[in-house]
Amino acid sequence: MRAPTRPPKRYEALADEIAASIRAGTLRPGDRLPSVRQAAASWQVNASTVFQAYYRLEARGLVRAQARSGYYVAAAAALAEPEDTSEPDTDSIAVDVGERVFAILKATMRRDVVPLGSAFPSPLLFPLARLAKTMAATVQKLDPRASVDHLHQGSAALRRQIALRYLIDGLHVDADDLVVTNGAMEALHLCLAAVTRPGDSVVVESPTFYAALQALEQRGLRAIEVATHPREGIELAALAEVLERQRPSACWLMTNFQNPLGSLMPEAKKRELVALLARHGTPLIEDDVYGELYFGARRPAPAKAYDRDGLVMHCSSFSKCLAPGYRIGWVAPGRHLQTVARLKLSTTLTASTPAEAAIAAYLQQGGYDRHLRKLRQSLAAQQDAMLAAIARHFPPATRATRPDGGYFLWLELPPGVEAMDLHRRAAAQAISVAPGPIFSSRARFERGLRLNYGHPWDEAMEAAVAALGRLASG
Amino acid sequence: MRAPTRPPKRYEALADEIAASIRAGTLRPGDRLPSVRQAAASWQVNASTVFQAYYRLEARGLVRAQARSGYYVAAAAALAEPEDTSEPDTDSIAVDVGERVFAILKATMRRDVVPLGSAFPSPLLFPLARLAKTMAATVQKLDPRASVDHLHQGSAALRRQIALRYLIDGLHVDADDLVVTNGAMEALHLCLAAVTRPGDSVVVESPTFYAALQALEQRGLRAIEVATHPREGIELAALAEVLERQRPSACWLMTNFQNPLGSLMPEAKKRELVALLARHGTPLIEDDVYGELYFGARRPAPAKAYDRDGLVMHCSSFSKCLAPGYRIGWVAPGRHLQTVARLKLSTTLTASTPAEAAIAAYLQQGGYDRHLRKLRQSLAAQQDAMLAAIARHFPPATRATRPDGGYFLWLELPPGVEAMDLHRRAAAQAISVAPGPIFSSRARFERGLRLNYGHPWDEAMEAAVAALGRLASG
Repeated sequence: MRAPTRPPKRYEALADEIAASIRAGTLRPGDRLPSVRQAAASWQVNASTVFQAYYRLEARGLVRAQARSGYYVAAAAALAEPEDTSEPDTDSIAVDVGERVFAILKATMRRDVVPLGSAFPSPLLFPLARLAKTMAATVQKLDPRASVDHLHQGSAALRRQIALRYLIDGLHVDADDLVVTNGAMEALHLCLAAVTRPGDSVVVESPTFYAALQALEQRGLRAIEVATHPREGIELAALAEVLERQRPSACWLMTNFQNPLGSLMPEAKKRELVALLARHGTPLIEDDVYGELYFGARRPAPAKAYDRDGLVMHCSSFSKCLAPGYRIGWVAPGRHLQTVARLKLSTTLTASTPAEAAIAAYLQQGGYDRHLRKLRQSLAAQQDAMLAAIARHFPPATRATRPDGGYFLWLELPPGVEAMDLHRRAAAQAISVAPGPIFSSRARFERGLRLNYGHPWDEAMEAAVAALGRLASG
Repeated sequence: MRAPTRPPKRYEALADEIAASIRAGTLRPGDRLPSVRQAAASWQVNASTVFQAYYRLEARGLVRAQARSGYYVAAAAALAEPEDTSEPDTDSIAVDVGERVFAILKATMRRDVVPLGSAFPSPLLFPLARLAKTMAATVQKLDPRASVDHLHQGSAALRRQIALRYLIDGLHVDADDLVVTNGAMEALHLCLAAVTRPGDSVVVESPTFYAALQALEQRGLRAIEVATHPREGIELAALAEVLERQRPSACWLMTNFQNPLGSLMPEAKKRELVALLARHGTPLIEDDVYGELYFGARRPAPAKAYDRDGLVMHCSSFSKCLAPGYRIGWVAPGRHLQTVARLKLSTTLTASTPAEAAIAAYLQQGGYDRHLRKLRQSLAAQQDAMLAAIARHFPPATRATRPDGGYFLWLELPPGVEAMDLHRRAAAQAISVAPGPIFSSRARFERGLRLNYGHPWDEAMEAAVAALGRLASG
């Protein structure tokens, strides 16, 4: 497994420096940034580096260009980011979240609500028409024996296309290392089934994606929630202690644009994580469904990139990037390949053959990367718009993460505002939100709120965020 | 739940009577049946009743028409049927069949083998071209929001079509009573997950479909194998004793054309089964994937038809009748509807949306029943050909079931012939078979052999059966 590493470019470093000044309050909303000429002189770089840095800050919603005037710190930049690492109780706990989570999810699935609590991006962002055309063409040429041939690990053509994408990202994962699944969720379940037995404990982040908790509950597993930083992911010192003392059977982590925080584990930290797990022989179930939705210069590597022992089980899908309803995901299960393949064979046999064939053909035609670039730009702009709306409408003490990818952000509401209460009152106004307590087996994060910015920004969205802000203001 | 009941028609009774004479050896292969005129006179029925009875016997492979001469007892009729009810050890047992089963299944999946051990019928028997055309048309009209709308129980249009089929068969199952799944196998797994906890015991037939054993193994469940008759299915007296003494959490049974025996539980017995289970409050997970593949006059009712307490979880799919690779199945989970729907939502979310839409549209167009009629005729003819070939090539003491539907038959090899040994030697000749021991958690049925007649009969099939017969003859 080869890893893509390089030092940050000069413009990236410059952008990070300015972002830190904004975060620290040295630069405030409405402040004008130095002109490109001034900046180039004072930082001793050339003008194009400054342009690139400002462009990057704009993409992150921190600054706004104003025609013939220059760059200004954006209103959204007034929003402080959550800084505190969570402090969960690390005793393992039998998970019992089902009822609570389902009751809340139900509200997010109605067509008539503003879907700020949804787990999906808008399907309108996907090239569904072109994909449908591809499917129409491929399904009529499908070999009738394909379904039987696919039984082992899924369509060979599709696995080859997925392996090519790993290759582009600098990872060496062969087609034969992959198992195609019914979406990433099935892949994650298969991984759990492969490396745990009922009663075992599994490490998750804190907060963690509720579906991970549901999966543990379904399999009679115990959760160990480990301290997690809102920007940089799980804390390795806390994890090390848990590995030492509690011997969990596996970790289930989202290293890239974690759901719900949006945290992105830095590369060096991923490398350390993999080394730490290798010392304990603990498998990592890596849920990397948002990795392609980065706003930076390139795809963040998954922890899998540093795996030398076959302990990382890398799960992803096309559901968040291309075709939610097709239900095509995959896993590179490392040393557990055969176990995972067999578990899949004896539960769902194979993914839907026409969907496999359509996606394989779509990827082969080219155009996927062009679509992804557009999708990333849309998501980044939507995040920007949502942060600005939050800055305008929410009480000043509200904090919001500003993820470098994905389509979720996480709010910390001011003291005294309860997310469950907000959820109930928002539902009455046909607005869904995902309240913090569903992201924890102990129903913590009473003031946490996950918002989805994966839908085109429009007046209804703006009005919904304004309404939430009023509710949060009491 | 309304049940379709009627006494057997006169011609059915007559056919059964003649079949019994053949089974008893009163009529032997080559014997000429009475002419239609003679028969009508001696049985005091009209000629058309005799014709219908003879036609039915021909469909079952027991007699053959010879032009301008009459009906003769077929060569295949020389094959005795297995008569003995199995006598399994009914102590519950932790299942550990995985390795053994997978090693053998692997051999059946190679393209270059004669697939007598396969679990699938030939995909060439399905209207895949027409279905592909339907999919090509529907996928381009698919509402982008369909995938999110389907999250609860699957496509409403598809569920309505499935409910209509229940209605035709005289069962009252509403669209809202159904959950669409990734094939019947997922449905069965979800049912298990809904009504059991690791360590519980589940009743299965003896022999039983190996995938049921694999499912129990995966979920840490114990199997209780109950005596089963090769023509009429599980023995209710033995089951009653097990229910009383061992309190299993569920039964997983195939009431129609059981895999591997081909047994068909008579209607009265199904009614009794449901009443017995209701007295114990034990859920029945009914695997009814072969029910549509009947050779008789009408679809045998599932046990679900007699369910008044919501205890029967009826699972089926389109994989054996229409579109194996599309992976569309369903379950009518009775009182466990909500649990099953939620379990599906948190493991695979939904079935593949384009496949759901295509099958819904195909069913709505009409033509499915015409396809099924053709399919049943093909399977009946192929069974006939296979039984005749077995009669020609296997040692005389071989016994074979003669199922009234499906595409599996079960052989009892003569004493001294080991199915595992036959499997190994056949594999060396590029012929797959499914040896008896994979259908039992204790690796019993050493002389049992499941053969698949779901593939068009041709010289290669005839040669393969001849080769098996030689191997079985020592």
